[in-house]
Amino acid sequence: MKPEVQSFVEHLGVAVAAFTGVLAARGKRIDLFGVVVLALVTAFGGGTVRDLMLGDQPVFWIKRSGVVITAVAAAGLMFFLARWRPPPGSLLLVADALALAFFSMLGLGKALAFGVSPTIAVAMGVITGVAGGIARDVLLGEIPIVFRPETTLYATAALIGCSAYLVALWCGLGSGYRALLGVSMVTLLRMVGVRWRLTLPEYRDASHPGSGVRT
Amino acid sequence: MKPEVQSFVEHLGVAVAAFTGVLAARGKRIDLFGVVVLALVTAFGGGTVRDLMLGDQPVFWIKRSGVVITAVAAAGLMFFLARWRPPPGSLLLVADALALAFFSMLGLGKALAFGVSPTIAVAMGVITGVAGGIARDVLLGEIPIVFRPETTLYATAALIGCSAYLVALWCGLGSGYRALLGVSMVTLLRMVGVRWRLTLPEYRDASHPGSGVRT
Amino acid sequence: MKPEVQSFVEHLGVAVAAFTGVLAARGKRIDLFGVVVLALVTAFGGGTVRDLMLGDQPVFWIKRSGVVITAVAAAGLMFFLARWRPPPGSLLLVADALALAFFSMLGLGKALAFGVSPTIAVAMGVITGVAGGIARDVLLGEIPIVFRPETTLYATAALIGCSAYLVALWCGLGSGYRALLGVSMVTLLRMVGVRWRLTLPEYRDASHPGSGVRT
Repeated sequence: MKPEVQSFVEHLGVAVAAFTGVLAARGKRIDLFGVVVLALVTAFGGGTVRDLMLGDQPVFWIKRSGVVITAVAAAGLMFFLARWRPPPGSLLLVADALALAFFSMLGLGKALAFGVSPTIAVAMGVITGVAGGIARDVLLGEIPIVFRPETTLYATAALIGCSAYLVALWCGLGSGYRALLGVSMVTLLRMVGVRWRLTLPEYRDASHPGSGVRT
Repeated sequence: MKPEVQSFVEHLGVAVAAFTGVLAARGKRIDLFGVVVLALVTAFGGGTVRDLMLGDQPVFWIKRSGVVITAVAAAGLMFFLARWRPPPGSLLLVADALALAFFSMLGLGKALAFGVSPTIAVAMGVITGVAGGIARDVLLGEIPIVFRPETTLYATAALIGCSAYLVALWCGLGSGYRALLGVSMVTLLRMVGVRWRLTLPEYRDASHPGSGVRT
Repeated sequence: MKPEVQSFVEHLGVAVAAFTGVLAARGKRIDLFGVVVLALVTAFGGGTVRDLMLGDQPVFWIKRSGVVITAVAAAGLMFFLARWRPPPGSLLLVADALALAFFSMLGLGKALAFGVSPTIAVAMGVITGVAGGIARDVLLGEIPIVFRPETTLYATAALIGCSAYLVALWCGLGSGYRALLGVSMVTLLRMVGVRWRLTLPEYRDASHPGSGVRT
């Protein structure tokens, strides 16, 4: 991708993630400050965890503070928009799938540039894609949505898309094609998952209650 | 400020933050170890997040481990004091406002020393002031107090005080006067907010329930 | 310890921690992805916090990604095993005590290698031992088990074991003997705590409700 295209897509992804952070406040009693923090954590949480694990500090949003302004502006806009007319869920779903795809590929690419092993590179892609949403849910005192059995191919879509990118890399595919392949696969898998309600198996336990450790 | 004054104020701020960490255990079933961790997280959480984001490691409390001893001693003291006669809420409120003011200015100053942009410097000031309390509330499984609509000018007071410090810096005010201005503004705004119950607007949503993303 | 023994014990500790991460999903609605994340967080959370605080990045599991594969395999195994026949609680209890002991000593040793003060070294040992379990409980929206008054000598066992190691170091005991002493003390204290239900005092508050700060 050309740098200006990548920059545009990144600001767009940050804005979408900020929107979902704001809308997570639904049904809770949260003020404007809380909403802005939820938006920032959703938008920057994944990339921040990635940068901390790799040791690339100051973290990315300190170096390119323009994205912080984009996220705060998006959060403020959605705070007022939601009172009047929130965006349709289907639009958000597609935008969020694209943001997941873009963030995962960005995380994967950065991890590869740091020379980590393939396992870790894929893990970093998935972390960059989903950790922001996990942190947002933890701040709201909820079990992360991405852990729940009714969630349809979210982290899994990122995992498969990142793996496909690596396979394409080993096959010698050009960097633009690899990125396109990865982004399309994540987005498509997410959409397919939502459409046909594809979910992962749920944890079940055959034991009697009360036999847990650490009591 | 002279170094010995700054050191004294820092130990005082750490002790006050540790006190509020202990008292957050109210109404929960928490043991002595939990209380000490809550105190440490409240006192050092903000500065730790700041140091990690900037990449200033080992983090500050590893380099100056005297503050850890102060925090543990303060937590232990309050653990036993609370059984007998907890401190009056009004005293804690003033002490906590002063700790917020001091921590914010410390975070702002450190961020400026790292050469970050003004937006990021103010963000670092606010993070240093409030992140410890957020982490404490998350450990207790609660939505952070600072996100709730009934909270009266807390993060906002830090935000305005940090901005005032920056304006004073651009106007060429001396460093002692800037620090005094910033600390007074944060403390005063917090007190004014409590007195006249000034709060931020609450998130409201006009949509039907169930249209959220990521299910 | 010989390197190959240390490596074997580390993989074993990681697997045991991953098991307890999976079993923490009991009674919650969590899918396979959630279970794997819980396992990874439990196994690597403590060491990751330690590495971030000290500034030793990339963090350990990026450099030695074999442990990630061990943890994911252990999580997958337990996910299916739990449906059929979960391991007996008593076996897990002993295994978990050993993992606590081993992780604490590893954290203490690494902190000492970074030249920190004794207070910080002991704190790093305890953090390495317990922070993974704390993060796991926070992800599940619960007050960490290790904070609860019914928990029998968990963090305390790690604290005393780490202190004993330091005393042995000052007395000039050889490194193998020190490690053996530390590991035995943590495991034994944990077992003694469980057997005779030794707990820490619980937080109690004599004040009227509603006098808390930050409202």
